Amino acid sequence: MTDRSLPNAPSAALLHRLGALLGPSGMLTAEADVAPYCTDWRALYRGRAAAVLRPADSAALAAVVAMCAEAGVAMVPQGGNTSMVGGATPDESGREVVICLSRMNRIRRIDPVDQTMEVEAGVTLKAAQDAARAAGMLLPLSISSEGSAQIGGVLATNAGGNNTVRYGNARELVLGLEAVLPDGGVFHGLRRLRKDNTGYALRHLFVGAEGTLGFITAAILQLQPQPRAVEAALCAVADADAALALFAAFRDQDPALIQAFEYMSGAGMELVTRLVPGASLPLAEPAPAYVLVELATPRRDADLRAALEAVLGGAFEAGTVSDAVIAESETQRLALWKLREEHAEAQRRAGASVKNDVSVPVSKVPALIERASAACAALIPGIRPAPFGHIGDGNIHFNLVQPEGMDPAAFLAQDHAIMDAVAAVVRDLDGSFSAEHGVGRLKPYMMPAWRGGAELETMRRIKRAIDPAGLMNPDAIFPPA
Amino acid sequence: MTDRSLPNAPSAALLHRLGALLGPSGMLTAEADVAPYCTDWRALYRGRAAAVLRPADSAALAAVVAMCAEAGVAMVPQGGNTSMVGGATPDESGREVVICLSRMNRIRRIDPVDQTMEVEAGVTLKAAQDAARAAGMLLPLSISSEGSAQIGGVLATNAGGNNTVRYGNARELVLGLEAVLPDGGVFHGLRRLRKDNTGYALRHLFVGAEGTLGFITAAILQLQPQPRAVEAALCAVADADAALALFAAFRDQDPALIQAFEYMSGAGMELVTRLVPGASLPLAEPAPAYVLVELATPRRDADLRAALEAVLGGAFEAGTVSDAVIAESETQRLALWKLREEHAEAQRRAGASVKNDVSVPVSKVPALIERASAACAALIPGIRPAPFGHIGDGNIHFNLVQPEGMDPAAFLAQDHAIMDAVAAVVRDLDGSFSAEHGVGRLKPYMMPAWRGGAELETMRRIKRAIDPAGLMNPDAIFPPA
Repeated sequence: MTDRSLPNAPSAALLHRLGALLGPSGMLTAEADVAPYCTDWRALYRGRAAAVLRPADSAALAAVVAMCAEAGVAMVPQGGNTSMVGGATPDESGREVVICLSRMNRIRRIDPVDQTMEVEAGVTLKAAQDAARAAGMLLPLSISSEGSAQIGGVLATNAGGNNTVRYGNARELVLGLEAVLPDGGVFHGLRRLRKDNTGYALRHLFVGAEGTLGFITAAILQLQPQPRAVEAALCAVADADAALALFAAFRDQDPALIQAFEYMSGAGMELVTRLVPGASLPLAEPAPAYVLVELATPRRDADLRAALEAVLGGAFEAGTVSDAVIAESETQRLALWKLREEHAEAQRRAGASVKNDVSVPVSKVPALIERASAACAALIPGIRPAPFGHIGDGNIHFNLVQPEGMDPAAFLAQDHAIMDAVAAVVRDLDGSFSAEHGVGRLKPYMMPAWRGGAELETMRRIKRAIDPAGLMNPDAIFPPA
Repeated sequence: MTDRSLPNAPSAALLHRLGALLGPSGMLTAEADVAPYCTDWRALYRGRAAAVLRPADSAALAAVVAMCAEAGVAMVPQGGNTSMVGGATPDESGREVVICLSRMNRIRRIDPVDQTMEVEAGVTLKAAQDAARAAGMLLPLSISSEGSAQIGGVLATNAGGNNTVRYGNARELVLGLEAVLPDGGVFHGLRRLRKDNTGYALRHLFVGAEGTLGFITAAILQLQPQPRAVEAALCAVADADAALALFAAFRDQDPALIQAFEYMSGAGMELVTRLVPGASLPLAEPAPAYVLVELATPRRDADLRAALEAVLGGAFEAGTVSDAVIAESETQRLALWKLREEHAEAQRRAGASVKNDVSVPVSKVPALIERASAACAALIPGIRPAPFGHIGDGNIHFNLVQPEGMDPAAFLAQDHAIMDAVAAVVRDLDGSFSAEHGVGRLKPYMMPAWRGGAELETMRRIKRAIDPAGLMNPDAIFPPA
């Protein structure tokens, strides 16, 4: 429960003016209409909102923001509402307004020579991917929520995903940006330039700011050629050290071929194959750990299968890999990916679980897994660590499943102790408490310890400089001062 | 000449304290010692400085900055002093101090698993490249001043160069950063993380800020595997449209192979082969324009020559390329690059010239060249446009050589008219007036027209928030308010 005298609740007169500006489809105030915008995807938060405002274009948004700013009303930006950390959910005061950009959903243009795409904030990531593909290009960003997540939120949270190892995070795809600032002014930065050294890189400030500095309304994204060949393999390995050795071998061959490189624990895979219908292990026997590697290239003449087999052959000889299966068809490739993507579902079926989206330097992933597993086992005997994820980026979803037979509520009562135990190891390894999910409303309390001192103070100064009244997504990123 | 009542000149007492802190080799005040730090590489500016301070480590720098900040003394950061826009030169007041980081020149560590390098600000780019190479890796950033330019300045100006087309600018290589803030506080951001979504991306604010927000003191850089094969070709093309068609063909084959893709005008090449000793055209006859393409790959088994010949063969058939020569040896490869790198020298020998470091969307380079050439010819009949550069990034060095026989001084008297004529075309094509050289002291006057409104105002707010007294590199980027 917040306890601020400011921001203000919107007055009836302001709501009337907003409604007149936005029209009947542009503003929701009935409780049943507003409710879906007030709970996050993980149902961690249940807020209230004075209204949901849905402008249809940047000009309407700018007008809405100017009116709210003048009235001192706090604004919570929302897109597809898929935050993992409550980053788009209003507080419980009922004073805030949710401003949802989903109606701003045009793909404005695709340029095949520049290989760029201009999209509005409300376009879903999936729709943007599809449009790029239809134009013969690749938007190289893929996350599990891509059917719902919208570009504005994807950029505001600097989303990562399976292809970061090859193409970088959302940030790396952004050439230009348009944003409505907290006072209703507009930053016109929709430039299609690969080089532009003219002052501060404002686009990089808005990317990852989680809506605390304004609204990203449109972006120019750099596309890539579509791959013409894709090969995937599931590999049995002894541990994370072996997984990293395999990664190094693929990277030594050619890092540009590595489209994805995912680690899965034996325990996690066991849950998937036992609990998820239709999931089965395509190897002779279970292994302590697994790697799902996917190579891709736009080259017509690349013998990608031979490239994959060359590295795997060397890894067999070196003892890095004990068994492997290469997908022989698109169906088999998707079946391999299903084993990776059903990890969250399998963990849900296995009982209560605690999730940690952490990162460490790539070289320290083995230490992370070993030490954090031991720390959690010391805390709760029988706890089942099931780490998986983007080992090529040092980003592990360090999830822990309750001991078999334990009361889920009793397990979850210790969730903070578990998270703290993992965090202590991550901290010691110079890692991050949020690799790709952001800070949102869930993790601001961690900022002072992890990013404190001059770093957090500089962030606060920037926040105050651009949003002096503190009206933009007030509960995200920053803990109460 | 500046006309500020603040900043203050350092008092004799402050200089005494600074000298005691830094020791005899750490502070220069004799005019002859100070002078080399007060003129930029292009000799556009001749400033004065109360002292040159040369701290040996971050702690000493932080102490120096705190003392200067408290006294209200303005600080000009300097590294290798290779700015093309006077970005590291003090003003004429004699009140400023130059703080040179060249003694902070340790390569702190290279990690072969993470493929990262931790370097201090004063390491030359060349020394960093050499250290990466000795460790079997590639620091994929190369600029003509790399023997002198230091990492601090390379990052503060977001340097580009010949390999941006493949690996991005300096910005894209930075995983972590350490910076001393204008009040002497230290931002400890030397993280080796590929994913870290914990608040604002401060490193991206310091990169490209040209020392106006503080001192970059060290960085974690992402390295790449060393290429195992390199192939280069010089191609004769009809014009920039054909050059872009050739670029599209190589990109369609595999953008990851394109290490460099440089455009040169026929006029510029004619100057090089006529005026530079030892430079000769390795083609049967001169062409209207040229492309120097270089492919590279770390793959052992890549038949890179075949890949190059495949695209060139298709380009011959399509009429995109009329002639081409492939380097048969490292000597020949360097000879091809000499033709590109001697462009500046050839233009110098041809008389007076005016330089424009501009960028446009890649697709608009042909329009830029055609329209800007025509605009300059209308201004000064006989003027010799010699555009060249990074066409794959849309970054053209649009240089103009005086008409033959014209008085150089008379030509240079029109330099602003020429720059304005080019700028008008760039502006109309949604381009940038500074692609890779930055703003420095040379171009702040252009900021209001090109980056004005909410964009410049937001930059000013950030500047005031982080450097409220305006002590950091006061004449760079921002025009007087």
